[in-house]
Amino acid sequence: MDTLLRIDMGAKGGPSIKKEPVGAYAGLGGRALTSAIISKEVPPLCHALGAENKLVIAPGLLSGTPASQSGRLSIGCKSPLTGGIKESNAGGQAAQVLARLGYAAIVLEGAPAGNELYKIVINKDSVKITVDNSLRLLGNYALIDALKPIHGDKAAYISIGQAGEMKLAAASIACTDMELHPTRHAGRGGVGAVMGSKGVKVIVLDDEGTKMREPKDPEKFRAANKVWVEGLKKHPVTGGGLPSFGTNVLTNIINEAGGFPTNNFATGQFAGASKISGETMAALETQRGGLATHGCHRGCVIQCSGIYNDAKGNFLTKQPEYETVWAHGANCGIDDLDTIAMLDRLDDDIGLDTIEMGATIGVLMHAGLIKFGDKEGAINLLKEVQKGSPLGRIVGSGAAMAGKAFGVERVPVVKNQALPAYDPRAINGIGVTYATSPMGADHTAGYAIATNILKVGGFVDPLKSEGQIELSRNLQIATAAIDSTGMCLFIAFAVLDQPETFQALVDLINAFHGLSLTGDDVTALGKSILKNERDFNKAAGFTKEMDRLPKFFTRDALAPHNQVFAVKDEDLDKVFNW
Amino acid sequence: MDTLLRIDMGAKGGPSIKKEPVGAYAGLGGRALTSAIISKEVPPLCHALGAENKLVIAPGLLSGTPASQSGRLSIGCKSPLTGGIKESNAGGQAAQVLARLGYAAIVLEGAPAGNELYKIVINKDSVKITVDNSLRLLGNYALIDALKPIHGDKAAYISIGQAGEMKLAAASIACTDMELHPTRHAGRGGVGAVMGSKGVKVIVLDDEGTKMREPKDPEKFRAANKVWVEGLKKHPVTGGGLPSFGTNVLTNIINEAGGFPTNNFATGQFAGASKISGETMAALETQRGGLATHGCHRGCVIQCSGIYNDAKGNFLTKQPEYETVWAHGANCGIDDLDTIAMLDRLDDDIGLDTIEMGATIGVLMHAGLIKFGDKEGAINLLKEVQKGSPLGRIVGSGAAMAGKAFGVERVPVVKNQALPAYDPRAINGIGVTYATSPMGADHTAGYAIATNILKVGGFVDPLKSEGQIELSRNLQIATAAIDSTGMCLFIAFAVLDQPETFQALVDLINAFHGLSLTGDDVTALGKSILKNERDFNKAAGFTKEMDRLPKFFTRDALAPHNQVFAVKDEDLDKVFNW
Repeated sequence: MDTLLRIDMGAKGGPSIKKEPVGAYAGLGGRALTSAIISKEVPPLCHALGAENKLVIAPGLLSGTPASQSGRLSIGCKSPLTGGIKESNAGGQAAQVLARLGYAAIVLEGAPAGNELYKIVINKDSVKITVDNSLRLLGNYALIDALKPIHGDKAAYISIGQAGEMKLAAASIACTDMELHPTRHAGRGGVGAVMGSKGVKVIVLDDEGTKMREPKDPEKFRAANKVWVEGLKKHPVTGGGLPSFGTNVLTNIINEAGGFPTNNFATGQFAGASKISGETMAALETQRGGLATHGCHRGCVIQCSGIYNDAKGNFLTKQPEYETVWAHGANCGIDDLDTIAMLDRLDDDIGLDTIEMGATIGVLMHAGLIKFGDKEGAINLLKEVQKGSPLGRIVGSGAAMAGKAFGVERVPVVKNQALPAYDPRAINGIGVTYATSPMGADHTAGYAIATNILKVGGFVDPLKSEGQIELSRNLQIATAAIDSTGMCLFIAFAVLDQPETFQALVDLINAFHGLSLTGDDVTALGKSILKNERDFNKAAGFTKEMDRLPKFFTRDALAPHNQVFAVKDEDLDKVFNW
Repeated sequence: MDTLLRIDMGAKGGPSIKKEPVGAYAGLGGRALTSAIISKEVPPLCHALGAENKLVIAPGLLSGTPASQSGRLSIGCKSPLTGGIKESNAGGQAAQVLARLGYAAIVLEGAPAGNELYKIVINKDSVKITVDNSLRLLGNYALIDALKPIHGDKAAYISIGQAGEMKLAAASIACTDMELHPTRHAGRGGVGAVMGSKGVKVIVLDDEGTKMREPKDPEKFRAANKVWVEGLKKHPVTGGGLPSFGTNVLTNIINEAGGFPTNNFATGQFAGASKISGETMAALETQRGGLATHGCHRGCVIQCSGIYNDAKGNFLTKQPEYETVWAHGANCGIDDLDTIAMLDRLDDDIGLDTIEMGATIGVLMHAGLIKFGDKEGAINLLKEVQKGSPLGRIVGSGAAMAGKAFGVERVPVVKNQALPAYDPRAINGIGVTYATSPMGADHTAGYAIATNILKVGGFVDPLKSEGQIELSRNLQIATAAIDSTGMCLFIAFAVLDQPETFQALVDLINAFHGLSLTGDDVTALGKSILKNERDFNKAAGFTKEMDRLPKFFTRDALAPHNQVFAVKDEDLDKVFNW
């Protein structure tokens, strides 16, 4: 984990490989590393699809170790969707495998002059880059099917579908899960388009012959991991709600709270909520021989995922996340789980961000292109992306572009990125995160739902403006730090509520790396990451006026609470005053 | 001219009309007035297609008077293309007629709740607003044909085609010319989409029974107008080049200078230039029984326009402007005047900015959707806009969106608006204007070609960075002032070179309005307009990073001079230091 693997896709005579020590980036992992490299090495005003942009793929500080939940992979670049810095992270197997191969990050640089499509294969002995145009325009599922016989089913695959090859701004990067399905996506901000602009279809990571990474202090590490796992298991969210019903446990909760955006953010409650809830989905999964409790990578104890089979009992997709169920469900007026699961499958296959797609289809329904609730219509819109038709290119470019193409005013985006599954008019804290995160609208950047709704880490009234700035600020700082460890963000529930679990996380890092960090050091790390990211965005031309929700959130009241977003602009500007 | 006609399209129970004195806006005309109203009354962060935006339609200070060349109509709003303030002006009859009707401006406000399409008819006695859905999705030509029998052929018509109704960001607003053809467009920045968002298809202006506006000092006015006309007639550009060959006299000149962007800004010279030059076009027009010398409105002595007939001698379109010939010609690799004329006709009919369309088709050719030089393909792309197909919506939304939808890096836009017909790598002065104008890339905002190439107002070497900042600054200030008079910008050639012609312009304003302005007052007016506009943009989130050309202009050298744009970023930031 002390080596950067730089691959210059634009080198004369074909891609060139350079391995170098992490050097100035030593001690950084995940988002801390991707954002440091992007902010130091990428000209903020470059074209996101040009040779000057870089795609940085980095496991976290604890990835590849026996520490539970350490399987997140951070992917960073200048975003073709927001025009700012981007870190999008994914679960699956890739982070663990990449870390065990000894790389702190893969950095894809430059851009090929021609139109060849490349495959990169990395194992403990070599890095091989070959042209393989037979992979062109394969979906992620067909791609993995084609590669499995060659590279085996122990490898981890990082790939793009048709959307990434077409360089569409909502294109994701897929990582394979334990079953080798391409279901874990760095979804947001168009990272897949940047991979496509580098001409790279897939990175195959094979860790055969490598070992689990060794802690500096194995004894202390084991002890800390025990406390860590116990803490995760005993918390009601990470030990109860998430394992039982997955993230979709939130459908009933957020709908009840009146913050479940329905029909392109027209209302805050969806009549069909119970038909698509986590409880309904878990029962259906079990009934069809799927799984309602499952992990996305080895070493997970939360097991928030599942296996969603079709009516005949054949695998269709992994258990769709809450945000996907919302995006393709309530936001499109669709109350049918099989349709939502099919849309999830298509998103994964084509390589698209499910949140952006749900928001985009919602905008197109609002424009009257198809009706709210039109299940076949929604599926067809994703198939248009697969085909690369002009309509598909609009869809695959996200909600902001769809709104422009069809003259819609009510377009739920911040910094051009679609808002996820929580309406800021009913849950003010998350609105602060949406508005101010350097990533664009992103619930994971500072998940205020925890404290506004789930009463984790205290309680801040979701319907009032008081306390939301501090809440979002603290969460954004903590999240930036967590995103650097390789830890799944869901650990935050236990970490926020249980001081000993937070301490166990710090102990894991210290024992592994031979450090003596304190809680303050973690906070300082989070702040420094956010500062890097904000500085990049500023140099890219971002201003405080971009740290705002679209006008309609402060103008049009949302039923059932009949409130608008209550936090004032001048308060939004205080989030990063610390 | 001391009355504002405010029409609230969103009033309960249907549009409401309010006439009010110009009040605080007294003494302002044209762009000075539109930019003052927008910057004072429109929230900079509002959605350009929302109820909070306003569309301001204002004749100039001298419009409707006997002063020659005073027929420009300014149209202002927050632009759906750039997101900043916009003033786009057009020739034709409307400015004169509106001024004679006594209105300093029409201000369209609010937005209708439903989907009705409105017609507004204004004469000396009344303002009538009626629903007329029979006009829906008519092209501008068919619209005027439908309205002429009702409103007569003395009226002036301000209208939108299909693009404006679809609220596409490259939609223009058409004004009829002396022959009642809808050929004079406020083309840039999507003003037509804003008119569409207000539900207004057409404004009919009937000045029957009104009189020419009366100067305060008729004697002085007549004397000044005589010097004025003499000045325009004796200058080689306004008295020679423009009348003989129209604006397209520039094709050979700019091609010769190596600044004629070809094939989406790939090179600076076009092999087919002589086939589409003004000289060739004028000969063809004459041969087919059209006109090579003609005015766009009554009272024009420059007569830079013409009538372009098809091969059978039937009217096809007005003489396409140089920028249109470039946009649909060299930039698309098309060397055929009949194709260019047909594209011009389609742009006018659908209501599209010819510059934006040429740039967009160039980007799509670059993407490989059709080939450079594909005449039928280019025509079909515009027809897609007419149909409102998804591809048409991409095309009608402009070059920036087309670049995103098709993953193209080389997209020639500043602030999302397409660059016109002069490559800044070969003509540095115009690059400064493109980069820094509050309007986005716009040659008319500070026409450095005059001094860089035509040696009007002195000479500044186009290939060097020296002197370009001052040149663009002075031209932007002078232009903002000229755009407020209602005067056609072409007067600038004579005004820049002949002090007595400049003085005649000041005398015209003073004699008409009973003022005693000096040249310094004109400069102060220009500065105050630019300040208003820049302040609006700043509040809308614009920064100096947006006052830049796309990266490729400073990276990829342009043949034949093999130079990149030479003006430094820090110098661009000095344009508005005065």
